[in-house]
Parts: sequence; C-alpha cells; structure tokens
Amino acid sequence: MSRASEATRKMNELAAQHDVDLSKLPRIIDQSADSITNNVNAINLANCSDERRKVIFKSLIDHLHAFVREVSLTNEEWMTAIQFLTETGKKCTDIRQEFILLSDTLGVSTLVDGINNAKPPGATEATVLGPFFTQDAHEVQNGGSIASEGKGDYLFVEGRVMDTKGNPIPNALINTWETDGHGSYDVQYEVRDAPECRGYLRSAEDGSYSFRAVVPVPYPIPSDGPVGKMLTALGRHVYRPAHLHMMVEAPGFEKLTTAFYFDGDPYITSDAVFGVRTSLIVKPELITDVAKTKARGFGEEKPHAYLKQDFVLATPEEGAAARKKVAQRVN
Amino acid sequence: MSRASEATRKMNELAAQHDVDLSKLPRIIDQSADSITNNVNAINLANCSDERRKVIFKSLIDHLHAFVREVSLTNEEWMTAIQFLTETGKKCTDIRQEFILLSDTLGVSTLVDGINNAKPPGATEATVLGPFFTQDAHEVQNGGSIASEGKGDYLFVEGRVMDTKGNPIPNALINTWETDGHGSYDVQYEVRDAPECRGYLRSAEDGSYSFRAVVPVPYPIPSDGPVGKMLTALGRHVYRPAHLHMMVEAPGFEKLTTAFYFDGDPYITSDAVFGVRTSLIVKPELITDVAKTKARGFGEEKPHAYLKQDFVLATPEEGAAARKKVAQRVN
Repeated sequence: MSRASEATRKMNELAAQHDVDLSKLPRIIDQSADSITNNVNAINLANCSDERRKVIFKSLIDHLHAFVREVSLTNEEWMTAIQFLTETGKKCTDIRQEFILLSDTLGVSTLVDGINNAKPPGATEATVLGPFFTQDAHEVQNGGSIASEGKGDYLFVEGRVMDTKGNPIPNALINTWETDGHGSYDVQYEVRDAPECRGYLRSAEDGSYSFRAVVPVPYPIPSDGPVGKMLTALGRHVYRPAHLHMMVEAPGFEKLTTAFYFDGDPYITSDAVFGVRTSLIVKPELITDVAKTKARGFGEEKPHAYLKQDFVLATPEEGAAARKKVAQRVN
Repeated sequence: MSRASEATRKMNELAAQHDVDLSKLPRIIDQSADSITNNVNAINLANCSDERRKVIFKSLIDHLHAFVREVSLTNEEWMTAIQFLTETGKKCTDIRQEFILLSDTLGVSTLVDGINNAKPPGATEATVLGPFFTQDAHEVQNGGSIASEGKGDYLFVEGRVMDTKGNPIPNALINTWETDGHGSYDVQYEVRDAPECRGYLRSAEDGSYSFRAVVPVPYPIPSDGPVGKMLTALGRHVYRPAHLHMMVEAPGFEKLTTAFYFDGDPYITSDAVFGVRTSLIVKPELITDVAKTKARGFGEEKPHAYLKQDFVLATPEEGAAARKKVAQRVN
C-alpha cells in the first residue's frame, strides 16, 4: 500500500468513526471577526436534534461573541479568563462549589431564581437556597429549639402559614437553618456531632408555628479562591448580611425557599451574593422582660429578640402566572 | 460580656478584616429578576480602581444576564451549566486545556484572534496558533526536510517572504509544524525521541524559502471530555481539516501566525475549531515526474505534492490600522 493510499485510508477511517453526516452540515469556510458568530450558530443549529438546546446555544453564542466584540477583548485578557475559569474548576470539591459561588457573586443565581421562583402579589418572596441546607436536621415541636444553649443571642420566631386568601395552612413542613453567633453553620466546624442551628417543624391546625433559635450574624463567603480574588480586584467585600433560612412546603402549594434578613445589618445593602429582598427584611423586637424569656423556654434570664413573621404560599397556578409575567417583563 | 455584645464585637471584627469602605458602595437592597443586573453593575463599578476592568465587567454582566433572561434559563439548565464548567476545569492538566478547547469550539478563539490579529489588504491572513507549537524544533536549511522518511506523503513547499509593497524580506524566521500521515503531532506519541514534522528556517536574500515536509491529514480534537460531549449533543463532529502551521517573523514586521488548509479536505467546511480562512486554502500540485522528487531531495522515487506559497507581512502600523478597522466594523 502506498503512503498516499494509506493516508486516504486513515482519513476515511477517521471519518467513519463519528456518525455525523457531513452533508447535513452547512458549508462554512471563511472565519473572521465578522463571520464567526453566524458560522458557529449555523453549525450548532444544523444537526442538533433538541429544540431547547438550539435556543440556548444560539443565545449563548450571540451574547458571548457580542461581549468579546464590545470590549475588543485582547489575547492577554482572553488568557486571563481561561486561567480564571480553569482555577475556578480546580477549586471545586465535594464540599466546595466555586462555580456556584461565581454565579452567586455575579448575580446569575439571583436572576435564575427570580425568573423561576417568582411569586404572585401577596405571597412571601423567595430567595437563594445557599449551600448550607442539610437533610439531617431534627424535628422540633412548636415552641421547641433548633439551637443549643450558648450558641448565640436568643431569638424567638413565630407566625402563621397561609394561602394568598388568608386561609391557614395546617401541617406545613417548615425547615429553618442559620449560623450560630460566631457566623458559622454547623457543617463548617471540623467536629460536628449533631445538627445544630437547624431543624424542622409543622404548622398547627390554625397555621401557626413557633420555634426558638439564635440571632444569626454576618459571615464571609469562602474567599481563598479565584472568586475571592475577583471580588478583591473589583473593590468588593466578601460578606453576607445575617439571615435566617426558611423553607416551607405544603401539599397543593409551591415550595417556598426564602430567608429573612435583619434591618440595620452593615452588609444588608451590599450582600456579596445578592440575596436580599426588601420584603424579606425583618426587624425583630428586643424583649427585655426576662420573665418572658424564661416563659418562652430559653435557659438564661436575659433579653431575647422576637420575630413575628407569617408565610404566604402560592399555588402552582398562581406561581406559574407570576413566572409568566416576569419572563415577559424582563425580556 | 453578654452574648449580645459578643455578637456585635464579632460583627465589627469581621467588618474590620476586609478593607472595603462600606460607605463607598452603593446602597443596594432589593434584588429581583428586574433589578439584579443594575445592582451587580452598580456594586462592581463603585469601588473598582481599574478602568479597563470596569469596562469588561460591565459588558460581561450585561451579556451574561441578557442570555439568562432571553432563554428564561431554568434551575435545572443552570445546574447543567455549573456541572459542565466544573468538569471542564477538572479536565485541565499541564498538557490538556479543556477551556481553550471550549473557546475554540465555540468560535471565541477565532473571534479574539480576528480582532487582535487583523491584517491589512494584501497581507497574509492569520489564524489560530493551536496547542502543538513547541520551542525545541531543529533548524533546517532552505530545501531541507522537517520530516523523516516514512512519515507520510511527500510535500515540497516554497515561496517568498515579502512586505505589502512586494519587497523581499531576507532572513525572516519561518517556523512550521504539522501532523504526520497518521494525523498525529510528534508530541502526541508516547515516545518522542526528537522533534518530528516541525522545524524552522530563514528566508534567503531574495526572500525565498523552501523545505520538504509531508502532506498533513485531518485529525480529531481531544473528544473524551466535556467539550467532546457538548459537540456530540450539538450533532457536530470533532475533526479539524488537515493543515500546515506556519509562523513567520522578521524585524520591523508583525509576527504572523497562520496555517494553510487543503482544497478538497472533507472537513474544510466544518472545522471543529473554526480555523479555516478562504485565503489560506491552498491546492498543491501533484508532481508525478519522480525524477523531480529525487532532485528535490526526497528519498523514494514516487510522486510528491508541490505547494508554492508566498507570505506577505504587515508592519506594526499597517496591522494597527487594520485592527482599528475591524474593531469599528464588528461593533
């Protein structure tokens, strides 16, 4: 066999290994800064069998290329971006997700959340889940405590779970989790014998619920990776304002993932991950009558913070209508 | 110290650890699908000391968010993207750069290249460098060979290096590298005793150059990672058409990184990394007079391919003018 026919044989063998019918692809030859976007879209859309994937890639390529054109990205900047993305991937482990952190700090998570979890007027608004929810929390009874003594300043939370018409929702499952008074979630400690500063409970017949907790405090997001470096380069800080995570679900209603933020927190107007919503800012009352503290089941005779907060859940129909509105409005 | 004052102390201590003056940041509270883009831009631009960084992040956030809005990205699709980016980062090693491959296959590399390496009319056009250039190639004399006998079909290349006015450029440094007849670069073999199918030479006084090589063949880009999966999901193949890499540099002229593609190649109209440019497609002549093959220094009496190709280099001034035009035109 001559070298020429061997090369041909090899070429045919290669072509046979992939199952793309070349005749189905557009004939694209001249790539330039002018033509490349149309060329990439043409080849991405020509033989892709999934309609939704086509929509996503078309928009992705259009915007990605428009960004590069708009700033006339240099080779050095491009390489910086490649290295940043590579380091971000390398930083990810089973317990650290640097790309989610990147999405959070660039507001993408909040945007995706705002589009997909929009609520109708009157319903409690949603916000980002965050990375600290766990499946192993213990059940507490109404009035029970999710935090051991000594974990922080006392906080008593109560309210009702209702539908948008004001009817009580009994037996709603309420999950709550938060930092302790040091700004750390239980899973962030090296030793974690049992779930702490987290728990779940059920609303009563009249929709009411109540539990004891601690006042959460602000804390920094993980800042020893590329995302931390990016925020520093932008002159941004790495803190989240204090917040109390809440997740409420009941049959016939959309699951609500939300959190309460605290009025007066120094980071409330510059949350590193853009989770704060005005309707979710609360102002607990300081109860200085220590007899009330004891009566609510706390161990020490000292003041406690008191938060009264209702939840209003939306039905799937109400949620779908709200999401449709948002999708129309933001486009 | 009461628990309340301890929490306050802790909060102040945290605030003191980062050096961002909170009063310099805009007061942002309400995050929603409507407000998030303005909010992220406001906080990114408020305290960033680098003007270019501001321009880049503003455009990045605008386009990234516009993409998410335009397709109403779902939570599941967002998570698919997070996982894809994470896997892409994990696939990167010292000898494998999956993010560059992603950039290549989405046309971003060609776009960045087209903006930054635009050439004036009449000059040889540039194309992507690719990952296979090495620093250790041997020098060959004009007419010498960059490929050992048996590495593929014979190819003889000659031409001249000139400026845009047609004046010869003597002593230009010409680097060239290519696959062998099996579609592999030397660095892709497990054993690599010496550089193979690569070399450098200098143009003569009249700008002329010539060298012996082999006819390169098409080959697949690395397709066992997330980028390969993406291309399959899009119904695209993973092949590059055959090409001969060339890099030409001379004092007083812009360095030219380019490649020649071969007319009739099955992948020339669907290059997986969008490197082909019409002006870089060549059609070597098949020389069947085997006496000529011997005369040109090849070992075996068989036909050889003959490529006559000049290079026209641009001065930095000509290049700058061309780049300015492209930047204006594509925006």
